[in-house]
Amino acid sequence: MGIIVQKFGGSSVANIEKLELVAEHIINEVKKENKVVVVVSAQGKTTDRLIAEEAEITNNPNLREHDVLVSTGEQITIAKLAMLLIKKNYKAVSLTSWQIPIITNSEFTNSRIRYINNETIEEYLNSGNIVIVAGFQGIDENGNITTFGRGGSDTTAVALAASLQAERCDIFTDVDGVFTSDPRIVQNVKKLETISYDEMLEMSSMGAKVLHNRCVEIGKKYNVPIYVKSTFEKDSIGTLVNNKNLEDLVINGVTKDDYISRITIVGLENKVGKTYQLFKLLSNNLINIDIIVQSFGEYITKDIAFTVKMNDLQKTLEVLEENKDILGAKEILHSENLSKVSIIGVGIANKPGVAADMFEALYENNINMHMVTTSEIKISVLVNSSEADLAVQAIHKKFFGEL
Amino acid sequence: MGIIVQKFGGSSVANIEKLELVAEHIINEVKKENKVVVVVSAQGKTTDRLIAEEAEITNNPNLREHDVLVSTGEQITIAKLAMLLIKKNYKAVSLTSWQIPIITNSEFTNSRIRYINNETIEEYLNSGNIVIVAGFQGIDENGNITTFGRGGSDTTAVALAASLQAERCDIFTDVDGVFTSDPRIVQNVKKLETISYDEMLEMSSMGAKVLHNRCVEIGKKYNVPIYVKSTFEKDSIGTLVNNKNLEDLVINGVTKDDYISRITIVGLENKVGKTYQLFKLLSNNLINIDIIVQSFGEYITKDIAFTVKMNDLQKTLEVLEENKDILGAKEILHSENLSKVSIIGVGIANKPGVAADMFEALYENNINMHMVTTSEIKISVLVNSSEADLAVQAIHKKFFGEL
Repeated sequence: MGIIVQKFGGSSVANIEKLELVAEHIINEVKKENKVVVVVSAQGKTTDRLIAEEAEITNNPNLREHDVLVSTGEQITIAKLAMLLIKKNYKAVSLTSWQIPIITNSEFTNSRIRYINNETIEEYLNSGNIVIVAGFQGIDENGNITTFGRGGSDTTAVALAASLQAERCDIFTDVDGVFTSDPRIVQNVKKLETISYDEMLEMSSMGAKVLHNRCVEIGKKYNVPIYVKSTFEKDSIGTLVNNKNLEDLVINGVTKDDYISRITIVGLENKVGKTYQLFKLLSNNLINIDIIVQSFGEYITKDIAFTVKMNDLQKTLEVLEENKDILGAKEILHSENLSKVSIIGVGIANKPGVAADMFEALYENNINMHMVTTSEIKISVLVNSSEADLAVQAIHKKFFGEL
Repeated sequence: MGIIVQKFGGSSVANIEKLELVAEHIINEVKKENKVVVVVSAQGKTTDRLIAEEAEITNNPNLREHDVLVSTGEQITIAKLAMLLIKKNYKAVSLTSWQIPIITNSEFTNSRIRYINNETIEEYLNSGNIVIVAGFQGIDENGNITTFGRGGSDTTAVALAASLQAERCDIFTDVDGVFTSDPRIVQNVKKLETISYDEMLEMSSMGAKVLHNRCVEIGKKYNVPIYVKSTFEKDSIGTLVNNKNLEDLVINGVTKDDYISRITIVGLENKVGKTYQLFKLLSNNLINIDIIVQSFGEYITKDIAFTVKMNDLQKTLEVLEENKDILGAKEILHSENLSKVSIIGVGIANKPGVAADMFEALYENNINMHMVTTSEIKISVLVNSSEADLAVQAIHKKFFGEL
């Protein structure tokens, strides 16, 4: 009789037919004599609708009141799901985050969980109830409602699983697990049986929007086994996210990130502090940098290249031009319409052949690489966006073959 | 610098244009250096929509979960109104009932307020905030959400005014006060400047749906001056509900109540306890009785007539037939399609001429009275529903003349 946490997102609870499917998944676990805690999001487009209504009032809402507004969506879902289960003769009870409570810091719209009081949930579980919890929200020490940002229900689910020392956390979604690439780009994607937390973090910070980073970070910290499953398939096994053995080499995925620009600063003075000065300047202007490559050029100067999102490009160029003299840069170049294509897999760093295989796939298809970076578990290359899908397909084929 | 409580109902907050009007009424009081507490209902048809969605799940919802569901409507309104005021550069903060808290008993869907903690509201008021409170709801001692039943926002407003010892409570509605009759029936209705709590109770338990009884009862108990005003008229004075001097004779209103049936039990044994036995029987069957008239008939029997709502008629007749022998009744008669027409006014009891004037108005219009009852402040007659509007018009003309 372990505790299982199940999470169902907005599209999984969008209407009464889908709530019936959700109820089936819950009842399955109850029949196995598990204690079940369910976390749900707002139904379908509810949150979007509330935000649209808010926009009629102001484009710059008070953030405390914004959180009061958008947190109502999940409250509607918990009540409906509890009613449905009770109608089916199961004991169920809904809990808002203040009824538990889930205590967060006071950063409205982007709060972080400080702690969860298990007492109320455990009492209800011990008296035979299915406990239905409103995702995405908590309260701060002063009793203000806070929310975690979009997708925050995943965070609620994994944090509850950690706090309650649940056997596992099942994240139900539209797709039946984590795949080796985006099925819209690659035909023969494969479902992963397992993936490590770190790989999942790399995957989700790239194109694959399966799990939100914060929920994976919590899962990693408290070692919560997370299953990504499909709401719409019976007996879905899905993908297990856990602490995989770092010795196993597997390439787990090929991902793509579009709308990237590269900026190259040529002839930056080769003095201590110049690189710091450059990135401090960008950070002060709230410009996010992704890849950075520094190459030594002439004797007393160096070249630095880095990437920014395309919608930050104009601002970045303006900031750099204004400060060209202070930075002591000769020239500022840029190129647009680039994509970052990456392979992700634990142990990549220990197998030099992996990078060679990846580059070979690109070479065979005449795809030019504008930049390369590597990490412990990831190799990324920058290619023209027009060739990015081909690059993903070629690399996927190299590592996973034809199905 | 007194405290003013303002309440705005669902139609007053239905959309952004109406919220702007509401904001004006609030800002008016702030400019007079008053501390303002605002109670709002759910917007427009929000509660109806939630109940319709609930009906897709079940026709017999768990009441705890029903209250979790329907209480979301007011939370949406408080956030929006607070945002709007903040956008206009006023300090404002929304409070749910659990943030205050407003503590109730545990009767879901029909809870009653036990006490209100003023502390949080007073802190916010003292730091210059307009406080926006979600109407219609509270929490019980175990932290469960409870609601007060439809129209419960009036109750929230008057209870807050009582607890905070506010100068007054303004109930903003569609109409500019309390009128002498229903303007859909009578042309020359007049607005009352003042009305007593008791008269208001009689008015609202009859046709006039201006204020809910429980809010008037609380107003009476704690002597809160209640103003009924129009949201849509500037500088509306409205009607003041307070403790009027009982010596002033005024007829304050003519009301009508439709769909009434009369049941007459002929030849009930004239024994002690028989009347009690009859009404206990009806009460056990959850049948609500309104008017009762007992007339002595023959020596050892009596006749009793009483009225029930028409949709209780069938059930009442069945119960009576089953127990005819136990009650010792000879015959059970009934008539349908009756209406109760009443005049209401403090001091009616001390002026016998009032009843005579009322009966004269009916006589002049050939309207037959099937039953008459009087109380300290009310005289009611039962007439055929087909003649009820004419009765109201005739009586109104008799007391208020042509305009």
